[in-house]
Amino acid sequence: METTRRVQVGSVAVGGGAPVAVQSMLSCPTDDPEACLAQIEALHAVGCEIVRLAIPRADVLDGFGEVCARSPLPVVADIHFDYRLALGAIERGAAKLRINPGNIGSEKKVDAVIEAAGAAGIPIRIGVNAGSLELHLREKEGWTLSEKLVESARLAVAHFEQRGFRDIVVSAKAHDVVQTVETYRLLSAELPEVPLHIGITEAGTIRQGTVKSAVGLGILLSEGIGDTMRVSLTGDVTEEVRVAWEILASLGLRRRSPELISCPTCGRTQIDLVGLANEVQSRLETIQSPLKVAVMGCVVNGPGEARDADVGVAGGDGEGAVFAHGKVLRRVPEDEIVDALFEEIGRLVP
Amino acid sequence: METTRRVQVGSVAVGGGAPVAVQSMLSCPTDDPEACLAQIEALHAVGCEIVRLAIPRADVLDGFGEVCARSPLPVVADIHFDYRLALGAIERGAAKLRINPGNIGSEKKVDAVIEAAGAAGIPIRIGVNAGSLELHLREKEGWTLSEKLVESARLAVAHFEQRGFRDIVVSAKAHDVVQTVETYRLLSAELPEVPLHIGITEAGTIRQGTVKSAVGLGILLSEGIGDTMRVSLTGDVTEEVRVAWEILASLGLRRRSPELISCPTCGRTQIDLVGLANEVQSRLETIQSPLKVAVMGCVVNGPGEARDADVGVAGGDGEGAVFAHGKVLRRVPEDEIVDALFEEIGRLVP
Repeated sequence: METTRRVQVGSVAVGGGAPVAVQSMLSCPTDDPEACLAQIEALHAVGCEIVRLAIPRADVLDGFGEVCARSPLPVVADIHFDYRLALGAIERGAAKLRINPGNIGSEKKVDAVIEAAGAAGIPIRIGVNAGSLELHLREKEGWTLSEKLVESARLAVAHFEQRGFRDIVVSAKAHDVVQTVETYRLLSAELPEVPLHIGITEAGTIRQGTVKSAVGLGILLSEGIGDTMRVSLTGDVTEEVRVAWEILASLGLRRRSPELISCPTCGRTQIDLVGLANEVQSRLETIQSPLKVAVMGCVVNGPGEARDADVGVAGGDGEGAVFAHGKVLRRVPEDEIVDALFEEIGRLVP
Repeated sequence: METTRRVQVGSVAVGGGAPVAVQSMLSCPTDDPEACLAQIEALHAVGCEIVRLAIPRADVLDGFGEVCARSPLPVVADIHFDYRLALGAIERGAAKLRINPGNIGSEKKVDAVIEAAGAAGIPIRIGVNAGSLELHLREKEGWTLSEKLVESARLAVAHFEQRGFRDIVVSAKAHDVVQTVETYRLLSAELPEVPLHIGITEAGTIRQGTVKSAVGLGILLSEGIGDTMRVSLTGDVTEEVRVAWEILASLGLRRRSPELISCPTCGRTQIDLVGLANEVQSRLETIQSPLKVAVMGCVVNGPGEARDADVGVAGGDGEGAVFAHGKVLRRVPEDEIVDALFEEIGRLVP
């Protein structure tokens, strides 16, 4: 896999071998800076690195400017239809723009945006979308959707580069996982030097959206495709970021907090394992260390099966065993098991 | 991809090009048949096709027999350590056995199980597990975990086939996604004719477990690997089945209910989109049809972006538009939007 070019989104590097950056998009109105900044704070706390805001109308630009000035994270302006909104967002301090070549209008308008972004030194994401392809591409007969999306991106990138603008990120999302994967594989082959923003669009509510994003982005990331990612969920925005981190962690690409290994319970389980695992998981979220922690249902199989865990607990009949690397350290009554576990964790993460 | 052999688990075909079968494992005690049957009923209702029960001790065998006799789904007996439990489970009507070659004991004991399963005409899953590899393999120097797991499976398969027993399914789970994917790719290459049961073991609580399973099983299924699957979650067992179906649907392999396309909301959204999407999702679960249904936040982009939806709604300011294939059919007040949508769905699915 060739390395992409690196672009800089505020303080965050994207592409060129930088860690895959996690981003999200605010769900509150852009003309309510206090609500936006509170949401950014919540996103920041769970590991979001870049935030995007919609600029639906000119009257939200002042609010957008205030958010840019006070946000701890780089802020991307999401522009559709009206290139003047892009110019206004650049003036107000956007760290990056996202425009859609399918709906931004004439070449002249696009060129005005390119010029302003170049002068401000900020990158532009060319965000192609299955739902808003240019008409001449949408109607190409015999082309797959992926081919149309990639062609739309390729034409836009060629135009930007011809104008001397190379601070480009490209995305080409569809809500179908198979089509999205195929599209990004093609993009990566055709535009190997351009950093890619990956995501499954309109993925749905928490369960479906998590699964579609994990399957689609998981396949791409496992193939080395993707420089920044957004999980789209119809739900709380912080959940998008938590899921993005879980995807990265599952592939061993990046990890924010300890890994929890917990068995799915079975007829051998004699303790409240689900409650125990959830309690341990939420206490682990505050610890920033790549520890492996196990919560196992039975003391017979548990310590051995979780032999590679740095520390763990296994339930028995009214009691639990605390173990490390497969060896039982001590047995404690069931209601002391979580505290005993975190005592051991405290020894490992001072 | 070569086609695997087909084995029959009760009424459910596994392998040989049959649809990927969805299974789960009960979390209630096997000696409480009423609780088990209630859980099986709940699993059946969300699309589970095979259930597995732990047989930790001989005194649960009678309960197991009662569950087998009354279960609407084929029942698999999960055996560790004691081969006599396997013989007892076969006698009580198990539709399949799962044994672990790493802990079932001597060849003579394995042969007794093979003989009894052969006489009963039921398949056996050889369930290799990273946590319980045979000692001689665990200590192989210079071998990767995947190579050890595959060798354990290969040796067991060779032994079974030498005894004339070919009704085999193989699994080789690890809790690490990358290792599990690598292991199953190797298994599929080395034992191309053996049906594979895929899963990520001890995947964790709902969010982490869903993501790890979706990434790992998604990659494998997208490569044509896997004949039956289990999602392991530390949580409600029905969630395992729902997630399994979402994984299959995301890759277009199988679909149980309509697909929901819903946008992630943004600063342009003026309605309670999350509430709306969740309400639509839960009403869609009762409909068995491969419809595409969209719930979009804004009437400006929504119908166009969800042009491939059979039917959908897009929110406006206090009202919504019902659309089909990108064309607005009618506008209704916000509180009538769900009913209007299901009125249209009712026309499509009589």
